[in-house]
Amino acid sequence: MILHLASFRWVDSVTDEDIDRLTAALTAMAAQIPELRSYVAGPNLHLRPGGMDYAVAAVVDGEAGLHAYLDHPAHAQVYADLMGGMLADRAAAQLPLTEGSLA
Amino acid sequence: MILHLASFRWVDSVTDEDIDRLTAALTAMAAQIPELRSYVAGPNLHLRPGGMDYAVAAVVDGEAGLHAYLDHPAHAQVYADLMGGMLADRAAAQLPLTEGSLA
Repeated sequence: MILHLASFRWVDSVTDEDIDRLTAALTAMAAQIPELRSYVAGPNLHLRPGGMDYAVAAVVDGEAGLHAYLDHPAHAQVYADLMGGMLADRAAAQLPLTEGSLA
Repeated sequence: MILHLASFRWVDSVTDEDIDRLTAALTAMAAQIPELRSYVAGPNLHLRPGGMDYAVAAVVDGEAGLHAYLDHPAHAQVYADLMGGMLADRAAAQLPLTEGSLA
């Protein structure tokens, strides 16, 4: 299994409504991508100083599933419609994950 | 539950040995912090272009557990001994997590 982590910083013009719309779109997108074993997305809780604005954590079975998810038309659509215009900075990484290691 | 995500970019002088030593130190650290429900750390698998160099994902029960982990002396020690000197950039965020939502 692979854990894909991404965090995002928004441009100043992004509103709470934009963020709610993005979360709804990402959640709907995730439901369309069978390769996603699990998926969480939302605004940073900001429990510590200096963090990013938003984050996504996705679990897939392997490398093919990761590409299927990230290259999925529904993913590209959310980027084109919403996220692309919100983005100031992005940080992403993938880690290997064994079953039950994150719970 | 809270998922804490952090990803890191290293300064150019960081070696594979530095990274192995860091992963060993973080793994040993995590074993000392009972507030960590689960913890994974390692170099980015780099399955997609343009990612960060390293990532950590940690799950804690709540906000008190998050602070207990991040303010733990063993965490500060790894930072002082290893990570602090390796770091060029860092991105972090926390997301709410429900039981079994990331597996």
